[in-house]
Order: sequence, then C-alpha cells, then structure tokens
Amino acid sequence: MTSGGEVVVALDVGGTGMKCALVRPDGTVAHAERHATEAARGPEAVVGTILDVAEALAGKARADGLTPVACGIAVPGVVDEARGVAVWSANVGFRDVPLRDLAQARLGLPAALGHDVRVGGLAEARLGAGRDARHVLFVAIGTGIAAAHVVDGSAAVGAHGAAGEIGHILVRPDGPRCGCGRPGCLEAVSSASAIGRRYTALAGSATTAAEVAARAAAGEELAARVWREAVEALADGLATGQALFDVAAMVIGGGLAQAGPALLDPLRAALRERLTFHREPRLVAAALGDEAGCLGAALLALDTLD
Amino acid sequence: MTSGGEVVVALDVGGTGMKCALVRPDGTVAHAERHATEAARGPEAVVGTILDVAEALAGKARADGLTPVACGIAVPGVVDEARGVAVWSANVGFRDVPLRDLAQARLGLPAALGHDVRVGGLAEARLGAGRDARHVLFVAIGTGIAAAHVVDGSAAVGAHGAAGEIGHILVRPDGPRCGCGRPGCLEAVSSASAIGRRYTALAGSATTAAEVAARAAAGEELAARVWREAVEALADGLATGQALFDVAAMVIGGGLAQAGPALLDPLRAALRERLTFHREPRLVAAALGDEAGCLGAALLALDTLD
Repeated sequence: MTSGGEVVVALDVGGTGMKCALVRPDGTVAHAERHATEAARGPEAVVGTILDVAEALAGKARADGLTPVACGIAVPGVVDEARGVAVWSANVGFRDVPLRDLAQARLGLPAALGHDVRVGGLAEARLGAGRDARHVLFVAIGTGIAAAHVVDGSAAVGAHGAAGEIGHILVRPDGPRCGCGRPGCLEAVSSASAIGRRYTALAGSATTAAEVAARAAAGEELAARVWREAVEALADGLATGQALFDVAAMVIGGGLAQAGPALLDPLRAALRERLTFHREPRLVAAALGDEAGCLGAALLALDTLD
Repeated sequence: MTSGGEVVVALDVGGTGMKCALVRPDGTVAHAERHATEAARGPEAVVGTILDVAEALAGKARADGLTPVACGIAVPGVVDEARGVAVWSANVGFRDVPLRDLAQARLGLPAALGHDVRVGGLAEARLGAGRDARHVLFVAIGTGIAAAHVVDGSAAVGAHGAAGEIGHILVRPDGPRCGCGRPGCLEAVSSASAIGRRYTALAGSATTAAEVAARAAAGEELAARVWREAVEALADGLATGQALFDVAAMVIGGGLAQAGPALLDPLRAALRERLTFHREPRLVAAALGDEAGCLGAALLALDTLD
C-alpha cells in the first residue's frame, strides 16, 4: 500500500481501447490499467464502462491509501471542453454526451473532459518533448492526423471544440479523397493508413505504413517513392502550420512517429526547404508514447482545480 | 479646445503612408492626421519621422487639453511584440529596430509596438465586425495577404512574432511563384496584386483587381474566370484556417474587401462547400476600414497599461 498523496483518475478513451491511470500532480503514474472500449456496443454502453472504470479507479486509489482529487477524461472527435460535452466522435459514436457532468456526478469529484490529441499535446508540451518551448505544435499521425497548438501550457480549443484539425487541410488539390469527403486532405496522403493504402494499391499486396518504412529503408524503390510522397505532403502541412502558428517546437507523435529518424530526418529537410522568411521550428519525436493522452487528461483535470 | 480626457498617441506605419491619431480609451478618435513614410530615405530617416510625428501628436494632445497616456505603433513585417522590436520589414526596410523603447524614451510615455495586421485584427475583433465573437480570424487582402487570430480580444503573436502568415500557405502546388520564393502560396493567387497580374497576363493590358471585379460583374468572361479562380483559392485558404483555428467569425479586410458582396458572396459559398464536419464561421466584411491599424495600435498600448 502506497502511503498518502493525491492522484487524478485519468482515462484516455479510444476507438478500441481505454488507457486508464492514477496520475500524481507531478505527472508520474501511481497505477495504470487498460480496458477494451468495445465501441460496437453503442455509445450508452461505452459511457457506462467509462463511468464504471473511473469509479473503480477512485476506489482503488482509496484502497491504496491515496486521495483521488479529480477525474480527467480524454475522447476523440469534436469536444466542447468548456461545457464538458463529447459533441461528435466517429469511432466511439458519441453525439452530445455530457461526459464531464456524468463523471462528476458518479465520482463526486471535480471532472474535466478533453480532446485526446489536445490533451496529448498538453502533456508533451508541459512534461514531454516540448517542455522547453512556450509555443508548441503537437502533431499526432496514426489512422488520422490531428494537431494541438499549445501556448504557455494551454491548448487552443476553438469556438466549437474543433481546433487543430491539421489532417483536414488541403495539400494536394488533385489528391485522393479523404474520409471527410473532401479531396486532397493531408490525412488522405500522409496518415499511416493512407501510406499503407497507397503502397497496397501500387504493389497489389496488403502492407502497413511500418512495412513501407522498413522496405524504403532497405532500398526498395516503390516503398521509397510512397514514403517520400507522404513525407513531402506532411512537410507542406507542417509549413502551413508554421506560417499560421509560428511555433518554437513541433512534436511528432502517433504511430507513424515510431519510424523515428526514417520519418523525422527527411521531414526536417523537406520542412526546411519550404520555409523562407519563417523561423524553422525544432522538429522532435514525442517523448511520452501512448501515455500522453492519460497524462494530459490528468493535467486538464488539475487545471480545473486551480 | 477639447476639455480633459485621456488619449493614446497611435501610429500605423505602412510602406507609403502613416496613419496617425489621438485615440480615446473607448476607441473613438479625437484627432487624425496622415504623413508620408518616404521609405526610400532609409529606415533611420523613417524612424526619425515616426518619433517626430509621435512627439508632435503628444504635444497637440496637451495643447488641446487632453492627456496622452501611452503610445502605440503598428508596423508591417515580422514584429516581436514582447521585446518591442521591428525584426524585419520588406517595405519599410526595418531590421531589428527597438521602436518601442525609442518611442518610450522620446515621449516619456509607456509604449507598445504591434504588427499592423495583428493590431488591425485586434481592433476588428474588439470594436468592429468581430465584436460579437470570442474567436475571430481577421484576414487582410491587399498587395499581400495576412491574418490575425484573435481569441478573447488578444491576437496570437507566435514564438518569433511571425504568426498569422496565411498568405504564405500552399494552396496551388502548380501555381505561380510567390514573392517569398515558394510556388503556390495563397498570396500569389488571391491577393489584389495577384488578381491584377493574372488578368493583365491573360488579357495583355494592365488591369487592377478592382477593375477585374467590375468587369466580372459586368459579365466579361475572362474577368469572371480570373475572379473565380482567386475566390476558390481564397476559400481553400480560409478552409485551412478554419480547420486549424475553428473560429466563430472571419472578418475580411484590406483593399480587396472593398469589392463587397462580389467577393463575400461567392467566397462564402465556396467556403461552405469545403467544410465537412467543421462549423461554418460567420464571414463578414471588416467594419473599421483603414483606421483599424491605428485603433489597434492604441488598444495594444492601453493593454500594456493594465
């Protein structure tokens, strides 16, 4: 049994899994566990699981001699953080779910609801790879692409909870159609799934982005071409981000960032080529891995206590 | 002689002219005057004129029974507002000029230095067309294109004073080369000068953007095509802005906005077409005309007094 100390009950809810933790105010993790989201059961069942897991975590904290002081929940999609409402989420099925108030009522603790990428950016900017910079753009590249613009430790939310959708900016007017319905979005060219799709279409055999990266590194010409095209479109997107945000550091996270220097080295060179009068941001890999969402949800909840 | 009352000495320095005013704390103008910048004389002479004009304005205020309480100066280019330094400006020739401290020393008043478009956005967001919205994107379209993202009455500056450069985002990978050196920037397709250039190249006779708008309205096919292409690229740029910022209102200013509904109506329709899951911002014309920079410089100076 750990003695004393305050913790935040933190949940990062994704389309397939929930990362859950008890997080201390300094950002260290006292306990972590994972659960399946099973989104196919429908949004009401998912909400039920979220509340059950959160309540059990608060109980676990108390059993371990810790004091749960707040609850932070991160979800994907469009999130209205001011009202604490999950407005819209394609992969979890939320439509206007007042998750913050539901958690507050169930746990009897102050609660905060955040957007998964925005709180991930919050964590990377405060505790991770961007901690030396006041102006940070966190870009998560996985199935989709989304960003968080964090200034002085606070992530921009937007007027309707939808800021940071860098995956849906136009980079290739003649490019493939995006899941959102528009042609040429960054996400339709440079996401991990887009890279896998593109190679699969050209090579005729199912391949993931990680395999494309490995084959490109091994000198395979087709893989190298697909990888290069994705990196170039990504550099176009980041250059647009730099023109609008003018940050000191760009932190690249999500599954694709696991390619490491094979992604970051050519991306840095391509970004440099595109910047003229703008200062080049420091381009670095995310440092917190898939814990970022949980840590960020905890930070957001702690902010509400101040 | 006006009786009593505090005013701010405000200057908006452009490549050709300086708009100058004594501005009351409520944003009304007690006195306005204009001077030539004569940038060809070199940056030192321009700085001299700025300080002379500011000092004379403070004297004029006192002679009129008013109390000058601060000085606000707006300049184009890259502006480090925190340090009060005009870092770089193509059309005035500034390189690392500590204008804020120079003005403070000369006038013996607290001073603030701002970026012309960012303070223009500040004024439009607080006093003008965006005054009902908490999240505003002000876009000035003239010789160039630049933006200011204003949230809760405060304009984003960026890590190096260069935020909001929406004119230099990629919209047409195969498009004309921009003055910045890169191909396909929004400014190279949709600025007033780009529209004039494009029509001139196709028609073979020198024409301004205002004339292109008039001819398009009169049903001339070539003018209509050039106008439509510019509006579509502009809509792509605004859609990118909405994806990243998620604002409630977009305020369009600068010379091109004088086209009124001939610009705003097709632009609104083209923007709507490009938004899928994002909420459509209110798209409106700027309300303060070319006084916005001066008013914004005054607001910025007043903010430093708080």
